[in-house]
Amino acid sequence: MSEAPHLTFDLEKPGMSKGHLIVPKGADCEALSLPVFSLNKGEGPRLLITGGCHGDELEGPIVARRLVEWLPEAQTCGRVIIVPVLNPPAVQACSRNTPVDGLNLNRVFPGRADGLLSERIADAVSRLLLPMADTVFDLHSYGPGWEFPPATTTHPVADPELMAKTIKMAEAFKLPMTLVWEHPETPGMFDTLAQNQGKVFVCPELGGGPIGAEALAIYEAGVRNALIALGLVDGKAEFPTFRQQKSSQTLETRRPSDELKSPASGIFEPRCSILDVVKQGDLIGIVHPMESLSADSTDIRAPGTSVVCGIRSGGYVKVDECIVLLGRPLNR
Amino acid sequence: MSEAPHLTFDLEKPGMSKGHLIVPKGADCEALSLPVFSLNKGEGPRLLITGGCHGDELEGPIVARRLVEWLPEAQTCGRVIIVPVLNPPAVQACSRNTPVDGLNLNRVFPGRADGLLSERIADAVSRLLLPMADTVFDLHSYGPGWEFPPATTTHPVADPELMAKTIKMAEAFKLPMTLVWEHPETPGMFDTLAQNQGKVFVCPELGGGPIGAEALAIYEAGVRNALIALGLVDGKAEFPTFRQQKSSQTLETRRPSDELKSPASGIFEPRCSILDVVKQGDLIGIVHPMESLSADSTDIRAPGTSVVCGIRSGGYVKVDECIVLLGRPLNR
Repeated sequence: MSEAPHLTFDLEKPGMSKGHLIVPKGADCEALSLPVFSLNKGEGPRLLITGGCHGDELEGPIVARRLVEWLPEAQTCGRVIIVPVLNPPAVQACSRNTPVDGLNLNRVFPGRADGLLSERIADAVSRLLLPMADTVFDLHSYGPGWEFPPATTTHPVADPELMAKTIKMAEAFKLPMTLVWEHPETPGMFDTLAQNQGKVFVCPELGGGPIGAEALAIYEAGVRNALIALGLVDGKAEFPTFRQQKSSQTLETRRPSDELKSPASGIFEPRCSILDVVKQGDLIGIVHPMESLSADSTDIRAPGTSVVCGIRSGGYVKVDECIVLLGRPLNR
Repeated sequence: MSEAPHLTFDLEKPGMSKGHLIVPKGADCEALSLPVFSLNKGEGPRLLITGGCHGDELEGPIVARRLVEWLPEAQTCGRVIIVPVLNPPAVQACSRNTPVDGLNLNRVFPGRADGLLSERIADAVSRLLLPMADTVFDLHSYGPGWEFPPATTTHPVADPELMAKTIKMAEAFKLPMTLVWEHPETPGMFDTLAQNQGKVFVCPELGGGPIGAEALAIYEAGVRNALIALGLVDGKAEFPTFRQQKSSQTLETRRPSDELKSPASGIFEPRCSILDVVKQGDLIGIVHPMESLSADSTDIRAPGTSVVCGIRSGGYVKVDECIVLLGRPLNR
């Protein structure tokens, strides 16, 4: 019989601790040790920050490492727990899913103690870390194949009071976009588990494309703004500059109706940029057939007035592949 | 016995033609039909533009499609042949190498008529298209895992006159960076074959990261500038705006000495941006160990005054993986 998941240190200990969350071994692999940072300054908000759930979204782990550097000086009260990398095998493989079991860690919460590796990670986090927090930031990003602005996202929550608190928390990051995302595939998400327990859960989607120094500075500023809003850190929240603008907008999007799919296979040419406002009939992109230069290309046009939340990078797309995600100002 | 490579139309025909370059079938797959555009306006420069050599670099094919749209109106003399996609199977697989034979098309020139698919494509291009041109633009890009500016690149050429003509042509794109790249792995490159025949060969590396509308506008402007410089198109060349700047610099870089390698495995955090000037000792990036938050991270510092030509996107890197490409102003 394998050991139970456990921490190598006591989260109740005052002050800073660094240790590991031990995910027990199973039939598929040995035990994992996930580095954990804890800063317990007593009474106050209780925050859990996680990153690296998907191994190809490394903005979160890098921003989490930066927090570990400056939080000991900056945090004035409350408790913060940081796990920069929830899924080390996926990070090492640069893959979204966990390599040994092929599962998406963010679809198996609350996990199982005797399950596959992804389920055992989810179980350890759900049982040992989630109960220690009232607010969770699970740092994600949109991946290399899309243009996507630095954003916070959340899904609709049935309880209107929790929904309002969640949107307020998401907006406190002051990132260029706050997105309420109606998403049909919610079972097994970390979000759903935490929200069902009445916690405020925000999922920053820290952009798409290559992770450069300028983008990281924006993401770090967003998380700092959220810590200030929670009262964990002193300071003044400021909108980070993104494409020469200091602003933020709150949008909503519905899956699948706000996802435009490619009507043909071919090379997708984006013709607009993220956060552009498009009106009915505006050209969003073009799909070029590859077989012949005489064959007609297919225009992708906006079905109505909307904001471009995300757009696929130029590249080969198959029929029915999603190429654009649209949104509208949130109807509160 | 398989048929020989051939064109479905006569390149000598005046005016615009659209047809195909037929790459014969072989043991590994059926014949391929590569769409080809030709615009023959008689006397003048003879230019061949190719894209899609590597299937994960689609800036080239998209810009080539745009040229096919406006060149019939704009071209005043000479001959232009455009092949937007040299390697359709690689584009469909989104892979750098050709899926059926695993070869890098840009390492098998001049190819072989009875070889593997990549070799047969190279052979068809070398025998039927290359002789029709004095200048070649082979449109590449740096791929999704790096931050890289819109650039033209070339390799050192032994003949000083051809070298000077090549650099002048590369600079005529007026893209933010013109890079002379001393590159040890030259055998089998399309570049080398063309240069050995005395042709001017420029390899635009049209940036890294997601391919968005703004980036495509810069690349298209660069190619238009080059067409104006050749005298194929009327107009005034202008520096495209990249990161609020309208400028260009010509640099040189040497492999492997200008490539900084990661001294450890871990998560790479870029701390500077492309085209930043760094001095000896300046922090370029950090490699964070994944095993523990108590273990020291490793700083990557500049070995001397240089310009950051390319920098790896934040992500997991292995020991000895290249993370930064440095350069210096070209010593003419």
